[in-house]
Amino acid sequence: MKVFFNGRLIERSECAVDIEDRGYQFGDGVYEVIRIYNGSFYTLNEHIARFFKSAAEIGIDLPFSEAELKGELKELIEANQVQDGGLYLQATRGKAPRKHQYEAGLTPQVTAYTFPIQKPEKEQQHGVSVITADDLRWLRCDIKSLNLLYNVMIKQKASEASSFEAILIRDGVVTEGTSSNVYAVKQNVIYTHPATNLILNGITRMKLLELFAKNGWQHKEKAITKDELLSADEVFISSTTAEVIPVTVIDGQKVGTGTPGPLTKEVQKAMQNSILSETAKPV
Amino acid sequence: MKVFFNGRLIERSECAVDIEDRGYQFGDGVYEVIRIYNGSFYTLNEHIARFFKSAAEIGIDLPFSEAELKGELKELIEANQVQDGGLYLQATRGKAPRKHQYEAGLTPQVTAYTFPIQKPEKEQQHGVSVITADDLRWLRCDIKSLNLLYNVMIKQKASEASSFEAILIRDGVVTEGTSSNVYAVKQNVIYTHPATNLILNGITRMKLLELFAKNGWQHKEKAITKDELLSADEVFISSTTAEVIPVTVIDGQKVGTGTPGPLTKEVQKAMQNSILSETAKPV
Repeated sequence: MKVFFNGRLIERSECAVDIEDRGYQFGDGVYEVIRIYNGSFYTLNEHIARFFKSAAEIGIDLPFSEAELKGELKELIEANQVQDGGLYLQATRGKAPRKHQYEAGLTPQVTAYTFPIQKPEKEQQHGVSVITADDLRWLRCDIKSLNLLYNVMIKQKASEASSFEAILIRDGVVTEGTSSNVYAVKQNVIYTHPATNLILNGITRMKLLELFAKNGWQHKEKAITKDELLSADEVFISSTTAEVIPVTVIDGQKVGTGTPGPLTKEVQKAMQNSILSETAKPV
Repeated sequence: MKVFFNGRLIERSECAVDIEDRGYQFGDGVYEVIRIYNGSFYTLNEHIARFFKSAAEIGIDLPFSEAELKGELKELIEANQVQDGGLYLQATRGKAPRKHQYEAGLTPQVTAYTFPIQKPEKEQQHGVSVITADDLRWLRCDIKSLNLLYNVMIKQKASEASSFEAILIRDGVVTEGTSSNVYAVKQNVIYTHPATNLILNGITRMKLLELFAKNGWQHKEKAITKDELLSADEVFISSTTAEVIPVTVIDGQKVGTGTPGPLTKEVQKAMQNSILSETAKPV
């Protein structure tokens, strides 16, 4: 298994980072998870653009262009012969004696590797249970940073409650899941939190907004309250690895009829068509 | 130079962590910085107790007792023959294929190393300039975690403004500095933010509260507004490495007369006496 590490493809077993890598001491870095279908990346351009944007937000100057990085990542999935799976990509500010502020001229540590993904078909078909939890994260959730401890703590809480995800509530309104965006359907209108500093604007979220418009499904980027979430007709979540998954139970209480809703199923179909159309090999 | 790494003392050059250490991908860990004077740790018990508390808060079960860890760290500073300096200690949840939730039974990765510290004598004597900034951190600042990106961003902003530190303001009130606690003196009363989820309860802060009481200095653990900070008679900050440093300029505006205040100087003396009495070698 090869890893893209400091600009080269090397063996996984040779990858090691220093204890004074700022990613290890401060979470001083950013990341992306990209889906691979049929040997091709899905929404690669969007992920790479966001990766550069996140890095720029925290002042990390990546040592290559977007095009160069895409070329390297394509070489990586060819080297690892990945047909279906995921790619994890992260950049940290680099290595330096520990202090909060940083000197100019550090060399970012960029790491990318591929990993298997089990498409969550059962969850997509039957829906999942979730819990709700307070959103105590920082107020720059729009940066896809390595500071994920609160997400970890709450995802673990969901997991211990045999739930697939936790939906976060800040000041009474739904923001997003610990690693997904959240949508509620009420009277055939799909609501999702606007892309502010309070959420990470998912690539799948952006794709879904396109698909909502294309299919003429009414939708509003508007925060809803926890009560509105619980009384919604349908609820679903999206992420790169989850794609679109119906939420049928929240905090032990059924959503609508307690089965995946009709509009949710339409959204799932549109999503699968998008994946197929972008990643199908030419005949 | 030796490093305490996975339970053993090994050479610095042999230390490397895996790219799937959860500390590297999620900031999933906790840390301490401990001061060494005259070959002895200062407030070691307090730091180690807080280290275990932080770990417990995020569900990391450390594989040794407090006493065992203290023994190892004493061996480390003897091996490195440190008379005056610092010790950095961190624990991450360990290594696992990346996903937010974690399996039981991971082995925490514990790392500790020593480093030189230049006592900030000039700053202690003449005082420093600071800036203020919005406090956008998560709402569990009481956990000393590796999720320090916002602290990094704002300390860097301070550094670029030729300031020593940034004082954070949340909802109009002073919380703390990016890596220090903050105190304001008004009419001979010392105010500092109470030890809630909004600040990290510094070991030096706790020591100073003891010294305030012992010396009969009036003090209140009470949040003050930014305006109250700016109109204070004296302001100072504390941390393990800074000890006690007067703040003489905030956002370009003089604090009081613009020189270290008389009560601040008394606090500094009491702090130095505490250090001497705890770390002086017996004759």
